[in-house]
Amino acid sequence: MVKSGRFYDIRLANDDDWAGIWPFLSEIVRAGETYTWRTDVTEQQARARWLLPRPWRVFVAVTPDGRVIGTAKVGPNQDGPGDHIANASFMVDPRNTGGGVGRALAEHVLEAARRDGYRAMQFNAVVETNTRAVALWQSLGFEILATIPEAFRHPTNGLVGLNVMYRKL
Amino acid sequence: MVKSGRFYDIRLANDDDWAGIWPFLSEIVRAGETYTWRTDVTEQQARARWLLPRPWRVFVAVTPDGRVIGTAKVGPNQDGPGDHIANASFMVDPRNTGGGVGRALAEHVLEAARRDGYRAMQFNAVVETNTRAVALWQSLGFEILATIPEAFRHPTNGLVGLNVMYRKL
Repeated sequence: MVKSGRFYDIRLANDDDWAGIWPFLSEIVRAGETYTWRTDVTEQQARARWLLPRPWRVFVAVTPDGRVIGTAKVGPNQDGPGDHIANASFMVDPRNTGGGVGRALAEHVLEAARRDGYRAMQFNAVVETNTRAVALWQSLGFEILATIPEAFRHPTNGLVGLNVMYRKL
Repeated sequence: MVKSGRFYDIRLANDDDWAGIWPFLSEIVRAGETYTWRTDVTEQQARARWLLPRPWRVFVAVTPDGRVIGTAKVGPNQDGPGDHIANASFMVDPRNTGGGVGRALAEHVLEAARRDGYRAMQFNAVVETNTRAVALWQSLGFEILATIPEAFRHPTNGLVGLNVMYRKL
């Protein structure tokens, strides 16, 4: 699906996109500053954890020359009687942050979640020192419901909190 | 490990215990009142979801005649830089609630989590109408950090909140 006014498209990911996702996803995870993933995650584990089957949807932001510069996934935050609240995760190539890719992916994911019938969206673990992400979610209507104290071992900031963030859809 | 003054032991679960767990675990899950699991979960899915490999620990409460009357699991609430906060889940045979099995399992799990070096314990989704569980956790030092509004579809109470609960260890 081409969106005008941007130099990239956002569309559903396919298996072939993984080769374009892994280089920056691995960089982000290995940095250990924003994700509660093992920093030594293998490519196979990461792929299984990111390219989730339905009801999850995985998106990529792709430049006209076919380069993946960001990705997002959205699905149920809980199962069964809790599956009407969505969860989502985002990874943007560090060489492209600040260009609005994260915000465009977020808006795309919010729209997809609405279309899928979710009533709200919840993030369980937004690192409080990831101020760019926290500010982005707040600007998109998310509020911090709680901060789990000292729940994240940041490589330079030490023990920092994890924000539980939420917005209705 | 035998504890005196009780008519049951609490010990690590083994594969053979599943046959004793599944009857009441399935009853609890199918009731759809307290767990964010699909109520139509298959036995195979439930087993994979409950008998988790290390670093998770799974316990059972067993009567002298070998009947499993409760079970609990404890492990990391998040991975990687978030794996120092524990998560835990509890299932007590409805024919044995009120007899202190839940509290005994909870105390056992808190002790195991401390021994494993976790700094705190977090529950992500305690159904707010599950007042017995909420009261038990509060009596054991947990506080409600947030209630995710309308995050659980209760079969008789409609949309109710999910409590995020937390205590240091």
